[in-house]
Amino acid sequence: MTITDERAALERLYADFEAAHLTPLWTQREGLMTQAPQPDAVPALWRWSVLHPLAERSGDLVPVGRGGERRAIALANPGLPGTAYATPTLWAAIQYLGPGEEAPAHRHTQTAFRFVVEGEGVWTNVEGDPVAMRRGDLLLTPGMHFHEHHNTTERPMAWIDGLDIPLVRQLDAGFFEFGPDRLATRATPAASRNERLWGHPGLRPLGAPATPSSPLMAYRWEHTDAALTAQLELEDEGYPGVVEPGHAVVRFTDPATARDALSTIRTEMHRLRPGTRTATTRVVGSAVWQVFDGTGTVEIGDQRYDVTKGDLFAVPSWAPLTLSTADSGLDAFRFSDDPVYEALGLARTHREEPSA
Amino acid sequence: MTITDERAALERLYADFEAAHLTPLWTQREGLMTQAPQPDAVPALWRWSVLHPLAERSGDLVPVGRGGERRAIALANPGLPGTAYATPTLWAAIQYLGPGEEAPAHRHTQTAFRFVVEGEGVWTNVEGDPVAMRRGDLLLTPGMHFHEHHNTTERPMAWIDGLDIPLVRQLDAGFFEFGPDRLATRATPAASRNERLWGHPGLRPLGAPATPSSPLMAYRWEHTDAALTAQLELEDEGYPGVVEPGHAVVRFTDPATARDALSTIRTEMHRLRPGTRTATTRVVGSAVWQVFDGTGTVEIGDQRYDVTKGDLFAVPSWAPLTLSTADSGLDAFRFSDDPVYEALGLARTHREEPSA
Amino acid sequence: MTITDERAALERLYADFEAAHLTPLWTQREGLMTQAPQPDAVPALWRWSVLHPLAERSGDLVPVGRGGERRAIALANPGLPGTAYATPTLWAAIQYLGPGEEAPAHRHTQTAFRFVVEGEGVWTNVEGDPVAMRRGDLLLTPGMHFHEHHNTTERPMAWIDGLDIPLVRQLDAGFFEFGPDRLATRATPAASRNERLWGHPGLRPLGAPATPSSPLMAYRWEHTDAALTAQLELEDEGYPGVVEPGHAVVRFTDPATARDALSTIRTEMHRLRPGTRTATTRVVGSAVWQVFDGTGTVEIGDQRYDVTKGDLFAVPSWAPLTLSTADSGLDAFRFSDDPVYEALGLARTHREEPSA
Amino acid sequence: MTITDERAALERLYADFEAAHLTPLWTQREGLMTQAPQPDAVPALWRWSVLHPLAERSGDLVPVGRGGERRAIALANPGLPGTAYATPTLWAAIQYLGPGEEAPAHRHTQTAFRFVVEGEGVWTNVEGDPVAMRRGDLLLTPGMHFHEHHNTTERPMAWIDGLDIPLVRQLDAGFFEFGPDRLATRATPAASRNERLWGHPGLRPLGAPATPSSPLMAYRWEHTDAALTAQLELEDEGYPGVVEPGHAVVRFTDPATARDALSTIRTEMHRLRPGTRTATTRVVGSAVWQVFDGTGTVEIGDQRYDVTKGDLFAVPSWAPLTLSTADSGLDAFRFSDDPVYEALGLARTHREEPSA
Repeated sequence: MTITDERAALERLYADFEAAHLTPLWTQREGLMTQAPQPDAVPALWRWSVLHPLAERSGDLVPVGRGGERRAIALANPGLPGTAYATPTLWAAIQYLGPGEEAPAHRHTQTAFRFVVEGEGVWTNVEGDPVAMRRGDLLLTPGMHFHEHHNTTERPMAWIDGLDIPLVRQLDAGFFEFGPDRLATRATPAASRNERLWGHPGLRPLGAPATPSSPLMAYRWEHTDAALTAQLELEDEGYPGVVEPGHAVVRFTDPATARDALSTIRTEMHRLRPGTRTATTRVVGSAVWQVFDGTGTVEIGDQRYDVTKGDLFAVPSWAPLTLSTADSGLDAFRFSDDPVYEALGLARTHREEPSA
Repeated sequence: MTITDERAALERLYADFEAAHLTPLWTQREGLMTQAPQPDAVPALWRWSVLHPLAERSGDLVPVGRGGERRAIALANPGLPGTAYATPTLWAAIQYLGPGEEAPAHRHTQTAFRFVVEGEGVWTNVEGDPVAMRRGDLLLTPGMHFHEHHNTTERPMAWIDGLDIPLVRQLDAGFFEFGPDRLATRATPAASRNERLWGHPGLRPLGAPATPSSPLMAYRWEHTDAALTAQLELEDEGYPGVVEPGHAVVRFTDPATARDALSTIRTEMHRLRPGTRTATTRVVGSAVWQVFDGTGTVEIGDQRYDVTKGDLFAVPSWAPLTLSTADSGLDAFRFSDDPVYEALGLARTHREEPSA
Repeated sequence: MTITDERAALERLYADFEAAHLTPLWTQREGLMTQAPQPDAVPALWRWSVLHPLAERSGDLVPVGRGGERRAIALANPGLPGTAYATPTLWAAIQYLGPGEEAPAHRHTQTAFRFVVEGEGVWTNVEGDPVAMRRGDLLLTPGMHFHEHHNTTERPMAWIDGLDIPLVRQLDAGFFEFGPDRLATRATPAASRNERLWGHPGLRPLGAPATPSSPLMAYRWEHTDAALTAQLELEDEGYPGVVEPGHAVVRFTDPATARDALSTIRTEMHRLRPGTRTATTRVVGSAVWQVFDGTGTVEIGDQRYDVTKGDLFAVPSWAPLTLSTADSGLDAFRFSDDPVYEALGLARTHREEPSA
Repeated sequence: MTITDERAALERLYADFEAAHLTPLWTQREGLMTQAPQPDAVPALWRWSVLHPLAERSGDLVPVGRGGERRAIALANPGLPGTAYATPTLWAAIQYLGPGEEAPAHRHTQTAFRFVVEGEGVWTNVEGDPVAMRRGDLLLTPGMHFHEHHNTTERPMAWIDGLDIPLVRQLDAGFFEFGPDRLATRATPAASRNERLWGHPGLRPLGAPATPSSPLMAYRWEHTDAALTAQLELEDEGYPGVVEPGHAVVRFTDPATARDALSTIRTEMHRLRPGTRTATTRVVGSAVWQVFDGTGTVEIGDQRYDVTKGDLFAVPSWAPLTLSTADSGLDAFRFSDDPVYEALGLARTHREEPSA
């Protein structure tokens, strides 16, 4: 065969591949199977000072109600155009509820949480159990739990929602159902029933109903703060507790299993003591962070952001991440898809040892 | 063969069995493999009003120190003569420490806990971490943890110890080591380091060292009481929480695994609302209870005891147990060998439905 | 505000969203969170009679070697244009190796298997252990195991490869490494070392090294066939064994853990007795099947395919699937992403009860 | 107080302890909590050449039937007088069934197996599934499975039974029920139904009923032998497989869970190549061994036994054990209580490194 003939034969072969819905590996292998993860998602920053006013404007212009369901505005990673995804697996949004507003009940396969960077006065009813939302609290909505929110005050309130929408969409695994149009309850107790049963350290209530996901659905700031404070105090006293010098972390867990509070999303609160710089770490899997208090600097690969309260940033898979803070110290909430990788045997972490 | 010959042959056979260290099943089967458990251990009651004065007299007459190691007086089940066992698997003792006394450090395979029915002022140092002991607290000493106790006050203090000594002895699994003769620490903090790290509901400290047993070694009465109170309040409000009408229970668990706080001993606190009578229940495995507060009546098979604060009673395997209380209500601490049976696939429970 | 003003304000808001890399939920919710899975992937059929000649033509025109690495031609789902994915999580390809050809060593995060519908004479060396490939065999290449193939005969051989390439790509979790250019071994034993250690029913070799994935990497047709035959014989004798009348199934499992042979891919062989029609079943998650023997009819939603030996078809998430066969009976190999959904708590199955 | 007064006071105290069913720890601690396990059980040997004739004589003198249930003669450890226990947890017996004899159906909590050192022709029906017993086979009877045995031949047959009778007795956990007086089946298939479903390496039958214990109840000698042979051949070829030089081991496992075939008893077959001497090993927990083939020498602490086919020996907890064999090689079946210790966190092993 001449080179020309061969080229023609190859062209015919490739045309026949296409007609037969086939694709050769040898032309694609390099892009499909990279030497290390090459995410389309990019490091990205969303400033609270931008987000919050836009949410406020939405509050004036867009009603909350059946259909759209929530006044939530999602972080759209610039590397994933056409999507509303913060990372390939994680959804993050600011949700905004005006005075007296109600977001109606629904339930879905997608796992959700809310984290409150400021404000209070909204209750989220989860399967009819009213859960107060206050600054610093993490509130869970495990998959297929009916939930609805209502603002009991004269002031608007905004918070962030985290979900595994992109993962569930990619896996074609999602089911969704509308709930009743009227609120299940207007009660506004300080503590939800699930907290009263499950919110005692190391104590299992024998009479509590079995649940497929975390029975504790509210993690209050007072406990989170106390735990982080204790870790840094123990460090001062010379005892173990911090993950690295000046860096305290708690992970939110299901008290009935001691595993991650949510099956597909890891949730953690980090505290950096003033003057701390973390080791640079790469993790397979992506994360979204929100600054809860203080100020600091985030380095993700080549990107460098100065961040302050409410700012959110996305960390793509295997991107090197370093956090630091000067005088103020830094409290930051992190959520990630780590449990997915651990469950599938795909987890990998690399920690650069700091140079002297 | 004549009958006489046959009998003689059989006698020779049995003699030859014995000489060869053999025993036929057919003469023993009925006793070895009973239709239901037939424990040698019997229901038994030990009154605090008897125990405590005897412990006090020991305080005057018997020194604490290296060798005997502890001034502990064990409940000896009348059905297990020659032993110091409360049940075939469980050891229970009252331990007594006079003003300023010290019980020296040692460690052992045997799993231990202390439960405090009254008093305060003793610290138990577990692996050098000083743990305060106060009324209502459960304090753990998992296997092979060095521990020592010292009374920091001018008053004596007594509490109960629970261990799996009989089980470990029967299994020939025990190792024992003396520790240093001098106290690891004389510090008397209100909260131990393990509590500061692990004593926050649903929060895992990422920087805490991994441990083979529960990292939380003190369960404080304030949490236990709050959890039981909440269960009964939820019952009043019409929500799940109690195990049966008027009966609240919390189980002490390892926050790192959500399993029993100790690998071989289950620990629980029960609260009966005034006027409650429990369903009659049989459990394979044995238990020891101590009344913590209130008064009540205990029925174990044919036995019936009126009990009050500090009284201890042993419940043999498969014995029907019913607790009741009149006006006072009843708080009772229970420990059992349930985790052993669950781990070995031998657990079985029968609950008699109450007649109308 | 007039309607015109409002519309203008809303347009400005949406423009500001876009500029800030934000997307509102309320315009997307319906598409993102559907009432049931709505896969982009569609039911699809690839005929062996088309695939194999194309693979042969590739054998003439495309060399095997470093870079492209494998002469593998992937099934590209028509619903996922621009990809080489059979389903959103699964890769399936026909691989072709001519007489004496070698496919060089590499390793990758992606989990792989080969299944042989016809032929023999290729050995795949997995971490240096030579594994024969013969009709009916399933051969594993767990993640990060070096592997290479070589054809020891004068005849070409083709088989199918299954991998989790789409899943790992979507999760940005893949690592890839080239191995040595020369074959690790040219040995051609009938049984690999891993089979000699682990291929005995119910027997664990105590001296075998620990492995993070299945230590058994070859499942031979003689065992698969015997197991399926036994299930149908037991059905004839009136005993349990089949999953439904006339339908026998074996799942390939890791003998060290009894879980799926691969962490992200389920592998099974199905046998339908002549005249059998399965219940219609929907599963969350996708699958690819290959007919191994016999003929039958596949119904996937509205699609209906008559299939014969070697034909492959893809079943999207939640699509109703029915298999039937007339006189010939049907043996079919199935692989799916079920373990992913089970690990993440997303599994759901619906089985339509057959009408009378 | 004078010394005399003090002594008198102490005597009164001790008398009062006894009257109150109390025992002080300080007089008992050393015996209860030893520095290392000090078993009452002793190393012991029972020769097949003694056992078998005694079993034969029993066959002439003692009928099999309801009540005694089995013609089984138990090994009674000389260190545990008054019991029929081989070790504190394990029962081991020779069972003997004459031509045409039947041992009637019963079931019990106690876990059992049979191991056949010689002969054939008895079928054990386990839940109505007839299981052939042949030389080298291990046959299981998990707890609460009805079982009965019948000898289908003109020759008597003897084998060993292993059970956890002492453990279950100590734990007061046993239930026992008589079954029907007539055999469930007289069928004598070569392979039981459970083997036909579950006896294929790495293959799970999807339609098989779920069972709480191993669904595979027969482990055939041909597989055991092949697995051991392969390990030694791999050693010859320079590959991993043996646990130490010349020493091959397979453990019998539940194919549905990959854990020990029985929940409370570990079962293994060991093979020593001619000229092998094992490392000296101590294990917390006890074991009973039976020589299956060849001859060898057993050292247990100070004891030394030359053993041959059928000989049984008991190894107490923590006793140093060494096996060796000269020209003949040695095959030996081992059963132990290891799973109990592993489940309870009490396992400990010490392996003496061989001196040069």
